[in-house]
Amino acid sequence: MRIRTLTIVGVGLIGGSIGLAARRRGLAERVVGVGRQQATLDRALALEAITETCTDLTEGVRQADLVVFCTPVDLIADQIRVCAPACRPGTLITDAGSTKAALVQAVDGNLPKGISFVGSHPLAGSEKRGPEHAMAGLFEGRVTVVTPTAKSDPEAVARTRAFWEALGSRVVLLNPEAHDQALAMTSHLPHLLASALAGVLPDDLRPLTATGFRDTTRVAGGDPALWTAIFLQNRMPLLKTLETLRGQMDAFQHALTHADGPAIDALLAQGKRNRDALGN
Amino acid sequence: MRIRTLTIVGVGLIGGSIGLAARRRGLAERVVGVGRQQATLDRALALEAITETCTDLTEGVRQADLVVFCTPVDLIADQIRVCAPACRPGTLITDAGSTKAALVQAVDGNLPKGISFVGSHPLAGSEKRGPEHAMAGLFEGRVTVVTPTAKSDPEAVARTRAFWEALGSRVVLLNPEAHDQALAMTSHLPHLLASALAGVLPDDLRPLTATGFRDTTRVAGGDPALWTAIFLQNRMPLLKTLETLRGQMDAFQHALTHADGPAIDALLAQGKRNRDALGN
Repeated sequence: MRIRTLTIVGVGLIGGSIGLAARRRGLAERVVGVGRQQATLDRALALEAITETCTDLTEGVRQADLVVFCTPVDLIADQIRVCAPACRPGTLITDAGSTKAALVQAVDGNLPKGISFVGSHPLAGSEKRGPEHAMAGLFEGRVTVVTPTAKSDPEAVARTRAFWEALGSRVVLLNPEAHDQALAMTSHLPHLLASALAGVLPDDLRPLTATGFRDTTRVAGGDPALWTAIFLQNRMPLLKTLETLRGQMDAFQHALTHADGPAIDALLAQGKRNRDALGN
Repeated sequence: MRIRTLTIVGVGLIGGSIGLAARRRGLAERVVGVGRQQATLDRALALEAITETCTDLTEGVRQADLVVFCTPVDLIADQIRVCAPACRPGTLITDAGSTKAALVQAVDGNLPKGISFVGSHPLAGSEKRGPEHAMAGLFEGRVTVVTPTAKSDPEAVARTRAFWEALGSRVVLLNPEAHDQALAMTSHLPHLLASALAGVLPDDLRPLTATGFRDTTRVAGGDPALWTAIFLQNRMPLLKTLETLRGQMDAFQHALTHADGPAIDALLAQGKRNRDALGN
């Protein structure tokens, strides 16, 4: 795969990493970074994550062969609808948003003729923000979920897949609803739990935390505004996984209340079996 | 501080790390490793975590100036009562158990004249087991909680403190009950949550987990038998923290049910504030 002009909208950790990886791997000649804040764009430029900066979305996509949106997930659909008319025919639009159903539904079938959209979600990142934390290797060996629908152009799906594979990712295809249900469990529920646990820690107990508490709550350091948008977009699947988890917590509570050692052991063994299967 | 004979009962990750640190820092001349399995002791000897092995507890403590129990927390009190009569007058006994109230209560005032016990808990370790994972630097910069009571000999408390400080630890003094209440929140509740979350992950979603899920559930890889003992010994404080956490989860659930963005944002911001205060 070879892209003449790649436009990245939102050049933070994810957008910056896409730029670095695309340049490192010789995937794109020009990488246009689009954002509202010139200072952030300048930092990305200095880090060589992009080759040009642009603070006007419509201007930034005009010459693009491929546009990737890495902005907060609640903004992406509107941004796509605003800028799509300025794209050249043949332009492919994708994104890196953490939820897919609402976004894909809002965009699918609402684009000018010749402009394609296929949703994506690279399962990579961290609680950090900004292009300073971008890494060229962020996508290597990581899964990117690509979410085509019945309306998707098969060639656009193939190009989207090829794009993420060219960045080092392994691609899994899922429909947007299946993606959202899966990620509610594998990403959004852990975030909720980590945040709830960190939230109830009394200040005076901070010195008595060790690696266990820190690992378990690490993702709670993520940006609240970004995660509020994710939670709102995926609230029904998230509420469902929360119920499932509460069932398991009820089982722990019951076993503890009755000092039932074998029941506690069985619950812990179930957790260990599943965790060990993930590796490090 | 200088110890002629240090006896470590249970030479796994923690016991092995104590031996390595004591030898590296020139704290002890002889380090006797006591355990039931000669093979484990031989591995610890090969790693130079100990200088002698002994499979008989009473034999192993006979010449000790200081004995540290690093066995599962539900076994320690009985082991101390069994071997204490074999100790020389002046011997100090401590431990590395994760819960303190039940253990300290069982041992306090039940030792032969001239033998002292002071409970300890180094807040270090991992989900790994065995002397292969021992590290000489495990205690450096980490907190060790030392848990004296009204019955403790002040000199024994001072020696216990000096021992952990000599291994590189920062010592905090707490009474056993305060320790258990604090650790229910900072260690046992995170373990329960991580295990519950890992436990409800469907097998087919494993490929869709990323670093967030893995960090949040890492401690669930710990040994179920060890953690069952910890949960049973500390079940009332743990049940209390579980109630507190459920309150925070209720708040999330309510906010999600009503699509209340500002409420979700406020909860996430509270989690982030507390998590950021911990550093990495």
